[in-house]
Amino acid sequence: MSKEITSRATDYAQWYNDLVLKGGLADYSAVRGCMIIKPYGFALWEKMRDALDEMFKETGHENAYFPLFIPKSFLSREAAHVEGFAKECAVVTHYRLKNDPDGNGIIVDPEAKLDEELIVRPTSETIIWNTYKTWIQSYRDLPLLINQWANVVRWEMRTRLFLRTTEFLWQEGHTAHASSEEAMAETLTMLNVYADFAENYMAVPVIRGVKSPSERFAGAIDTYCIEALMQDGKALQAGTSHFLGQNFAKAFDVKFSDRENKLDYVWATSWGVSTRLVGALVMAHSDDDGLILPPKIAPVQVVIIPIYKGTEQKEMLDGKGKELALQLKNAGMRVKFDNNDNNRPGWKFAQYELKGVPIRIAMGVRDLENQTLEVARRDTKEKIAIPLEDISARVNGLLKEIQDQMFQKALDFRDNHISRADTWEEFERLLDEKGGFISAHWDGTAESEEAIKEKTKATLRCIPLNNPAEVGVCILSGKPSTQRVLFARAY
Amino acid sequence: MSKEITSRATDYAQWYNDLVLKGGLADYSAVRGCMIIKPYGFALWEKMRDALDEMFKETGHENAYFPLFIPKSFLSREAAHVEGFAKECAVVTHYRLKNDPDGNGIIVDPEAKLDEELIVRPTSETIIWNTYKTWIQSYRDLPLLINQWANVVRWEMRTRLFLRTTEFLWQEGHTAHASSEEAMAETLTMLNVYADFAENYMAVPVIRGVKSPSERFAGAIDTYCIEALMQDGKALQAGTSHFLGQNFAKAFDVKFSDRENKLDYVWATSWGVSTRLVGALVMAHSDDDGLILPPKIAPVQVVIIPIYKGTEQKEMLDGKGKELALQLKNAGMRVKFDNNDNNRPGWKFAQYELKGVPIRIAMGVRDLENQTLEVARRDTKEKIAIPLEDISARVNGLLKEIQDQMFQKALDFRDNHISRADTWEEFERLLDEKGGFISAHWDGTAESEEAIKEKTKATLRCIPLNNPAEVGVCILSGKPSTQRVLFARAY
Repeated sequence: MSKEITSRATDYAQWYNDLVLKGGLADYSAVRGCMIIKPYGFALWEKMRDALDEMFKETGHENAYFPLFIPKSFLSREAAHVEGFAKECAVVTHYRLKNDPDGNGIIVDPEAKLDEELIVRPTSETIIWNTYKTWIQSYRDLPLLINQWANVVRWEMRTRLFLRTTEFLWQEGHTAHASSEEAMAETLTMLNVYADFAENYMAVPVIRGVKSPSERFAGAIDTYCIEALMQDGKALQAGTSHFLGQNFAKAFDVKFSDRENKLDYVWATSWGVSTRLVGALVMAHSDDDGLILPPKIAPVQVVIIPIYKGTEQKEMLDGKGKELALQLKNAGMRVKFDNNDNNRPGWKFAQYELKGVPIRIAMGVRDLENQTLEVARRDTKEKIAIPLEDISARVNGLLKEIQDQMFQKALDFRDNHISRADTWEEFERLLDEKGGFISAHWDGTAESEEAIKEKTKATLRCIPLNNPAEVGVCILSGKPSTQRVLFARAY
Repeated sequence: MSKEITSRATDYAQWYNDLVLKGGLADYSAVRGCMIIKPYGFALWEKMRDALDEMFKETGHENAYFPLFIPKSFLSREAAHVEGFAKECAVVTHYRLKNDPDGNGIIVDPEAKLDEELIVRPTSETIIWNTYKTWIQSYRDLPLLINQWANVVRWEMRTRLFLRTTEFLWQEGHTAHASSEEAMAETLTMLNVYADFAENYMAVPVIRGVKSPSERFAGAIDTYCIEALMQDGKALQAGTSHFLGQNFAKAFDVKFSDRENKLDYVWATSWGVSTRLVGALVMAHSDDDGLILPPKIAPVQVVIIPIYKGTEQKEMLDGKGKELALQLKNAGMRVKFDNNDNNRPGWKFAQYELKGVPIRIAMGVRDLENQTLEVARRDTKEKIAIPLEDISARVNGLLKEIQDQMFQKALDFRDNHISRADTWEEFERLLDEKGGFISAHWDGTAESEEAIKEKTKATLRCIPLNNPAEVGVCILSGKPSTQRVLFARAY
């Protein structure tokens, strides 16, 4: 049965698009670069959002909501920030439409021009720190640990479903602290929350590291990141956590009086992950037959498909199927019993394979007579006969096993794709022939970093945390280096 | 202890603003008409959102996400819709900023002008029905039951925190059906979901009705609504559910083939509630000392406040307080133990009164010796001594009692504020002296409706569902009428 999915070997990018579109995750829209997140894709995002939100709350954060619009002048307040974000933005210049006096539909009313243009937020540091100025006076107001779930807009020239879209959904944490140490600790706490989520929910292993100065968030002192590896050997930045120092506090004049009543600027962090994670999830695990979703994130974990001939068998299986679905639900699983009569079992098998449902249970009259059901794993396609009496416990155990094995498989792949290069030739060859992360010496200059990118399209992904010191020479310039860093071609 | 809240009698509007600002629900922002939802206000909205989301899912709906931007031309496609929504909108005309060559910060890049302006969605019927065109071909694709949680922008001239803001958060359901009957049934199902939510979660009684043609959603065949009554006697529209007929299907050419393979336009509904509900909640229940929140929506249901002198007592109560908090949490309640040493109990009492926490438990050393705690209700301010051994069950029971009594109190108030008027003098007198809903005959014309509004500022809130037929004459025109309708001054 062909589901008309391009194979990874034929065209990896097209394979990805096929999965997203045919798997029902997203669709193109009439607005350039903006996508529609379809119900199945949104259900995935909801599962991810809910798990993250719980982790944020457990680490003491509260949600709030700040305006969509940012006055243009705010973007200029922090010198580095304006360079990074005031470029490709959606700009609101007018606030009214009117009927065209010449009868050509509606036009922008030239009299409704804003005195100051509004920018649709590309990120919210500026509007939030402008607000924090009125919320923070004393050390008693700190720390302020706030997160928001929001849509943001960056006018991207080349877009890809989930991975890079003009509008996307994300969360952005913005915290304020009384000391540099506390803000730095928060930065790393949230990096670890992201790594924990990526590995234990998405089953995607990540490398924690710090970005080079060239790749820092505009306005940050340091940008920490988690980097994941996709099946085509390309890296993907899956989340960032920024130590902002006092940059935004200075730009927006946010001071607090400490216990000794001395005034100082407030210390800041910001951190975010976005719907891009859905793209990472798809690319990390799926195969040529469709999506493969980790059980903890899968909107449906188990699908039960009745196999019958005629009305009598259908009715009998309807009853038994609903019973089993309820039994598994009560045992804490997300279950669907698909007794839709319009589609045949074979079509359904292929459909749930495409959708990446972790476990499929087929239920026929003979199976019930034998008191044994055929249980199929999506990830390995293995089929297991399980006695009806053990079904809840065994399927629940299987879900855990799938979650663990998906992570282990991705981890093995990732670890097999971290290669050391000690010469430029080796560096280029590894990038072209094997892909993945290349661990190589770098002289620490933006010039070499840029030259490497121009020659190979590989970027400096990160300097891993707790990176061992090692004397060597830069892979490109031959100048002295004190440590290896990770390069890769990336999304 | 003064919390500096204006009393309702002095200035109802100022009382409301004081509660919202000092209760920590929201704040003004630097962007005209846009507000900031603060953590406590957002926690309230989250509780409301989660309860509604569950009800939507139970009635078969799925969430999705559509673009923030709508091409200008889309708004003109449905004739009535354009009149209602294409006026006060935020219009994106450019997609890039650049450094001012004259050195005056950043300016809009004149070369980055969009070919077609984009409107920040004021509602999403147009972009969604443009998408449904590609999703719907056959009766097998129907019904399509989709909801989205989103921000929308309507450029309001006069704004009020939560009640009317330029940007607000809401949900908008957009469903597609194979028949008029099914779409109408959906319209009423969702109206009932809203009424159920308002009454059983928010403890706000509502009247279900249909709007007059003048008050219909732009593009709808019929608009159904739930109308609530605030303490100042003004009505507030708390939710709407629209039967859209085939209007949007025709505007966007969305046809389906039925079982007989005949083509017909698809039938539609849309329905929404917004952060405005937070304003309704505040105004329906609160008093001059602060918010009063219904337990089912309250972010914190029970606060425990230790009362101690000296370190030894503090440590003892810390242990006992945490123990009790855990015990109540395990019994399913949302509990906060406030052992912050910076504030005195009296200050805390006033603070949680202001925040509307339904139940306050004071815990002193003497109370523990007596094995009895003082439990105070926020709504009635009644204090009850409860033996420690019964505390979980009794507090849980009390929360249910508070929820029920808050609804009953609001219902009594509402029912006492539905008055019949049979003469114009009586109509005006009731509006001025008593407020509330006035049940009066209306001749069914837009002219009379408009004249009544101009003379009294009262609007026709709704024609209640299952309204009894009654012969009479219009309160204003004296022309024949077949039923009474409800008028009120409104938010």
